[in-house]
Amino acid sequence: VKKIAYLGPKGSNSDQAVQFYANKTKLHDFEEFPTLTIEDAILLLENQGVDEAVVPIENSVEGSVNVTLDKLAQSPNLMIAGELLLPIRYVLMAKRDTNPQHVKKIASHPQSIAQCRGYIRDQYPLVEIVYTNSTSEAAQIVYETQEDMLAICSTNAMHLFDLDVVDRNIQDFENNATRFVVLTQKAKKDQDLKDHKCSIVFSSENKPGRLYEVLEIFKNLQVNLTKIESRPSKRKIGEYIFFADMEMNQREDLIAQIHDLLKYKTSFLKFLGAYPVLSNMSDV
Amino acid sequence: VKKIAYLGPKGSNSDQAVQFYANKTKLHDFEEFPTLTIEDAILLLENQGVDEAVVPIENSVEGSVNVTLDKLAQSPNLMIAGELLLPIRYVLMAKRDTNPQHVKKIASHPQSIAQCRGYIRDQYPLVEIVYTNSTSEAAQIVYETQEDMLAICSTNAMHLFDLDVVDRNIQDFENNATRFVVLTQKAKKDQDLKDHKCSIVFSSENKPGRLYEVLEIFKNLQVNLTKIESRPSKRKIGEYIFFADMEMNQREDLIAQIHDLLKYKTSFLKFLGAYPVLSNMSDV
Repeated sequence: VKKIAYLGPKGSNSDQAVQFYANKTKLHDFEEFPTLTIEDAILLLENQGVDEAVVPIENSVEGSVNVTLDKLAQSPNLMIAGELLLPIRYVLMAKRDTNPQHVKKIASHPQSIAQCRGYIRDQYPLVEIVYTNSTSEAAQIVYETQEDMLAICSTNAMHLFDLDVVDRNIQDFENNATRFVVLTQKAKKDQDLKDHKCSIVFSSENKPGRLYEVLEIFKNLQVNLTKIESRPSKRKIGEYIFFADMEMNQREDLIAQIHDLLKYKTSFLKFLGAYPVLSNMSDV
Repeated sequence: VKKIAYLGPKGSNSDQAVQFYANKTKLHDFEEFPTLTIEDAILLLENQGVDEAVVPIENSVEGSVNVTLDKLAQSPNLMIAGELLLPIRYVLMAKRDTNPQHVKKIASHPQSIAQCRGYIRDQYPLVEIVYTNSTSEAAQIVYETQEDMLAICSTNAMHLFDLDVVDRNIQDFENNATRFVVLTQKAKKDQDLKDHKCSIVFSSENKPGRLYEVLEIFKNLQVNLTKIESRPSKRKIGEYIFFADMEMNQREDLIAQIHDLLKYKTSFLKFLGAYPVLSNMSDV
């Protein structure tokens, strides 16, 4: 039985990603391990408590999830085995007798608050924000409190407690979507690389034009980069590592070619995996 | 009297940046407006309630501060007038009679928690995290509570309440530093561009090799990019805008040259300012 860790609790966006992943890959028999933080899910995988961890890596509004990128760069054996792209919708929930005009607090996860920042400012400019570990926890707090408080929940957490819907689709950007990754401890060997993406992370010496020279390699190989992103090296401000995603387009020899060319231009290089992308964006 | 908004409250890292800025620029007479969030400080500037806003833009460990970058990209008149580079050190604070072995909660701002994540995991693996709006607020909560709780504070917030120091320099990376920016509503005209940095934000069509072509322009002009970073366009996942910082090196004609060359390769281009960098890193 495959064991899968994810950022919990039940009803979280990551839980929704796990269900979608199981559904798409016809995985009927698996055990779920919800964790309190993204880091805990990855640590559980590293300590071999689970076979896979499903965690967010990028949101279309808030950008990259730092802890996921940092772990991928730091842990030599951590690999990406799959990508899951899901739409994210938020609802505003309240206890039955809450008067919207008396609301003093809004509770949710910091990422969810960030994705509904404009809505909160327009509709509830004076409320106090209460940060929670998940949107499910926000719903629970509102359910249990005596105060005039609202919870911002993902649509899959809205039925966990007996709360009323105050408003729907309150995210600031309609096309709000999140990329999740399925992490494993080593790369799967048996995968067909057709229609796959490949991800790498590298650092270059802090030398003018170095990033340009790296991009030139991809250009010469006619590889399309779908993303390039810098993260601090953490050693010194102004020093960066770079994450790049590229389309594989059935070119199974590409990884070896990139490796041969990139090793001369980088001081650190790690392949994060070649993996399929499963998208639920058309179901919106 | 110059009015300066910053991410408060008194004792915050941004407050420290304001004091450093006033000190370095010999600004003796100014009024301070602490705000609850970074966005509030920038909104106060946009609504002409203040002349300048001092907010964090990048930390050496956690990376960019999303709300600051997003505001710079979205608000046509928002400009960078200066950069302030400061070391960030954290201390762990408790009420006098707290027994470290009985601690159940640790309170701090989410960014500070993130910068001390490894320390918390090693020393207090079982505690619950309480997120606050600032490290000063964390100190206040610990001061007022009856529970066994600790606060992670920046060194300049440690004396605001009558608390004991449990541990010092608890940040995971020794060289922890934060870049703050001084924001204004329009560029200062009177600045000498010697030893200045210049920042731009642009978006390119989502076309293979486009970023390479943009970097080629900088290479041909012999401009050293000190940073390039992508952020989601927010319209669609996989679409990005790019922030770039470059060294000016006394080349006052550079901005016009870059503008002329870049306008053909970008669908959106905004100059964020040419500005001096004031660093306190040697004082550590």
